[in-house]
Amino acid sequence: MAEKKFIPEWTSTPPLPGSYRSIAKQGAMDEIKLPSERYYKLLKGELGVDDSYFSGKRNDGNMPVRLDEEVDVPGDVVDALVKISGSENVRSDSYSRVKYSHGKLQEEMFNLKRGVVHEAAGVVVHPRDKEEVKEIIHLCDSKGVAVNVYGGGSSCNKGFLPERGGVTLVMNTHMKRVLEVNEKNHTCRVQAGCMGPDLENALNNARTLYGTTHAFTCGHFPQSFEISSVAGWSMALGSGQASTYYGDAADLVLAMEVVTPAGVINTSDYISTATGPKVVEMMKGSEGVFGVCVELTIKIFRHMPENRKYFGYIFPDFESAVNATREITQGQFGLPAVLRISDAKETEHAFELYPVPSMVESFLKMRGFKPGRRCLCLGTVEGEREFTALVRKKIGRIARRFGGMSTTGYSAKEWYKDRYKTFYMAEAVTDYDIILDTVETPVRWDNIHEIHGKVYEYANSVPGTMCISHASHFYQSGTNLYFIFGVRGNVDDYMAYRSGLIEAMVNAGGSCSHHHGVGRLMTPWIGRFLGKEELGAIRALKKYFDPGNILNPGHPLGTDSQVD
Amino acid sequence: MAEKKFIPEWTSTPPLPGSYRSIAKQGAMDEIKLPSERYYKLLKGELGVDDSYFSGKRNDGNMPVRLDEEVDVPGDVVDALVKISGSENVRSDSYSRVKYSHGKLQEEMFNLKRGVVHEAAGVVVHPRDKEEVKEIIHLCDSKGVAVNVYGGGSSCNKGFLPERGGVTLVMNTHMKRVLEVNEKNHTCRVQAGCMGPDLENALNNARTLYGTTHAFTCGHFPQSFEISSVAGWSMALGSGQASTYYGDAADLVLAMEVVTPAGVINTSDYISTATGPKVVEMMKGSEGVFGVCVELTIKIFRHMPENRKYFGYIFPDFESAVNATREITQGQFGLPAVLRISDAKETEHAFELYPVPSMVESFLKMRGFKPGRRCLCLGTVEGEREFTALVRKKIGRIARRFGGMSTTGYSAKEWYKDRYKTFYMAEAVTDYDIILDTVETPVRWDNIHEIHGKVYEYANSVPGTMCISHASHFYQSGTNLYFIFGVRGNVDDYMAYRSGLIEAMVNAGGSCSHHHGVGRLMTPWIGRFLGKEELGAIRALKKYFDPGNILNPGHPLGTDSQVD
Repeated sequence: MAEKKFIPEWTSTPPLPGSYRSIAKQGAMDEIKLPSERYYKLLKGELGVDDSYFSGKRNDGNMPVRLDEEVDVPGDVVDALVKISGSENVRSDSYSRVKYSHGKLQEEMFNLKRGVVHEAAGVVVHPRDKEEVKEIIHLCDSKGVAVNVYGGGSSCNKGFLPERGGVTLVMNTHMKRVLEVNEKNHTCRVQAGCMGPDLENALNNARTLYGTTHAFTCGHFPQSFEISSVAGWSMALGSGQASTYYGDAADLVLAMEVVTPAGVINTSDYISTATGPKVVEMMKGSEGVFGVCVELTIKIFRHMPENRKYFGYIFPDFESAVNATREITQGQFGLPAVLRISDAKETEHAFELYPVPSMVESFLKMRGFKPGRRCLCLGTVEGEREFTALVRKKIGRIARRFGGMSTTGYSAKEWYKDRYKTFYMAEAVTDYDIILDTVETPVRWDNIHEIHGKVYEYANSVPGTMCISHASHFYQSGTNLYFIFGVRGNVDDYMAYRSGLIEAMVNAGGSCSHHHGVGRLMTPWIGRFLGKEELGAIRALKKYFDPGNILNPGHPLGTDSQVD
Repeated sequence: MAEKKFIPEWTSTPPLPGSYRSIAKQGAMDEIKLPSERYYKLLKGELGVDDSYFSGKRNDGNMPVRLDEEVDVPGDVVDALVKISGSENVRSDSYSRVKYSHGKLQEEMFNLKRGVVHEAAGVVVHPRDKEEVKEIIHLCDSKGVAVNVYGGGSSCNKGFLPERGGVTLVMNTHMKRVLEVNEKNHTCRVQAGCMGPDLENALNNARTLYGTTHAFTCGHFPQSFEISSVAGWSMALGSGQASTYYGDAADLVLAMEVVTPAGVINTSDYISTATGPKVVEMMKGSEGVFGVCVELTIKIFRHMPENRKYFGYIFPDFESAVNATREITQGQFGLPAVLRISDAKETEHAFELYPVPSMVESFLKMRGFKPGRRCLCLGTVEGEREFTALVRKKIGRIARRFGGMSTTGYSAKEWYKDRYKTFYMAEAVTDYDIILDTVETPVRWDNIHEIHGKVYEYANSVPGTMCISHASHFYQSGTNLYFIFGVRGNVDDYMAYRSGLIEAMVNAGGSCSHHHGVGRLMTPWIGRFLGKEELGAIRALKKYFDPGNILNPGHPLGTDSQVD
């Protein structure tokens, strides 16, 4: 009789209510994704550990949240907050203070599971409408109380960490409504805290809900879709999986209403007006240091899922895959929505996790798609029926021209179904002091291979770590390189490796982020990337909007940080 | 024998060298476009005058430029400028000082022809490279000498008027080169003063000139194409005739190098990087109040004129034409490049200027295309061959669905040939104290008819004036309304009528400009449109970039103007 196969005791039950684990959890409490047997095997190989490493769970974080730190907001301010938003919306219990002070950076997840909390809001307020936000900002500004904003809570760079405690505003409790679907203009007005699924659901069902002729889509589907808010998308310059067609978050926003200590900014919703530098553009990417976004007008698009085409290709190597996607983005025949090419390493992972029959493998090798070099590509085309057919056809022709072979739309369909959930798995492995995380940088076509190579050079120099990569979010002039990495050890090992990857990206000519934003994590690189003159311009705006420096204090885009 | 038909003595000879007229002239000195007989008739009818009005020419401006005003730049500064740029590039002759202080606002043209000069630069400098610009800005900042920038000189709102005299930098003398055509990235690096035709010529012939595989186009074709510079396009938020497909000037610019008193801003050319608010976006539309743009990286597109499709339709009325174009822009099948719908009044002008045979006219009326209601539409589709075929087909189907009938591509082709020249004619009529000019505003689909109606309400309230309109530059959420108007009388009559039109646009919910920019002309409206909070943000940047307020002083986006 064969020895029983070892399987780690992955936690498959929802986190206990009120626990640290429940804060660290990604997505719905009962949606749990465990590493497959194959993934477990792959992980052991990559990180250089065996079953014994997984013999005992380190931390599950299922203990109740308990915060000893005192509330740092003066009593008269708390009283005033209660007067503004009602006592039920002003919370200073430990759980609220910890939950709304954390995003989804793996460092935070790691620490939370160990009950380690470095910073927490003094008071958490759930404003009911924008008038309340105005009153709160006025109050906090006059009292010098710090204000941070929690949108959907998906920040993966400590974007809203309450370094100076104070008040954290939670936007997705009450201020989360779709206010108007304007079919004529193909626009939608939403409150800042409107979450991805609520928006998309309202738009997809606009015929029923708003009496429109067409169904609509928001076009923005970041991996964080389920846990991010519309205001967060643009305030941190996000990019969705279908951005190649629909544009980045910044492209989708026509107008914003932002409450600042200097007054309310309420920009025009004209996409084009030659009336000076656009203040709405200054707000995009400002990550809460200028003001609190309360409302947005965004573009919406006709929703025609019946026309969606899925495609998949395998290329002999990364270079041919890159060349093919470059031709696709520059060909002037329309763009695909999702477009993604895995590098050789990510492709090998895919083959390990979803092995093909040996006959197929032989065929692939014979055709020149060799392990260690071959690269997978997948994507979708959206839009009007004949348009999607044309773009799909063109993509096929280009792929073949660059040595690609169709793998059918199957992989794209499978990927599509699971596209927000794949990362849930990171949660299970942190129980064993293993962290899976990502970094990303924009690249141009003329430096993609240089940056890709330099990041791997660093990654490969650290034994017992894992790094794979893909390109996604394509533009005529380049794309984005996304690195998924795994590290075991303590939080410092992980953060050091993470920094090493970013350092390699920036040194090779990338930036420190393509679509995850700045946050406190990018302090060492943001000044280097922008230069002191650009940083000075951002800080001049900071001084204007928030002279008392109450908003997101300590953030590297603000005035009191150590970056230069 | 019939009486000889009266024809005004239009000036058909090039302006005398050194004359005021030569400064007022649009385009090349020998390219003169006179009103046709039909246009002359139409003009008389619209403005309520007869042949006797044209019996004597008022002013032809062919006298030599003579400026009595002293040079206001201190001698030591002039000496230093000579040291920096060479004596041949530092000019204080009357002609240079007047020429480089004027744009192409009809008010300026009117005054120049009468020898009226209100403001003139003290010294005109033609910098040879960006290092010289840096030295000049440093010098002028330290000495408190005003600096204005002349790009192509096409401003139609007194954008670079040297209100405080000082130095005017001319960018299109030396700093006008294409520096790099990067085929891989589909980008192009140019000096600020590169003029439209030079850029487009270099790109169209990139295979020969730069050894590229493809020919390229810049995609930006404003009516001012021949007399405007690349930096000017984005610094004043221009929009080209093919913007519906290629985007506005702001969309085309990836990076800018701008010399400011606070230092040199040199932005990243990543189209998307989540590294805080984008300083390049702050520069777009800043109209010379923040700094001097010296270099830009712009997107370029494959040039495939062989695939260009021309189309033309006639619609029963403006509403059906608007509805059809709305459907075109929202249909998700790709966009046309040029798209333009004339309102009923502009359409009637077209029929008067280019009459159709009476049989055709009868046919049109029978089919429901009635004079006074019917509207013409024209456009082009550009891009890959099958893509243009598809988009062309879709446009046809939509046009028919909304009651349109094809007028073939003939009118679009004719329009295309003449598209930069039509306005040259304005020059001839100013000799008779008649001014033809334009104003424009963005509109949304849900307020286009309201704004259109309100502007006409004002226009029709002033007897002896003319106003026609078309929509061009289309977006998913709206378009731009362009009004062409004619006034006779003195400059005050003209400016009052012009202001009345803008006032009507703004009151009805438009802005004061869709793509002509702010300049000094928009002082009465810019604060009202932006609000003091937004204006404050722009001025906070002004204070940062130019604390001494030497750049374009007096401009309403600056800190010393009376707007609020």
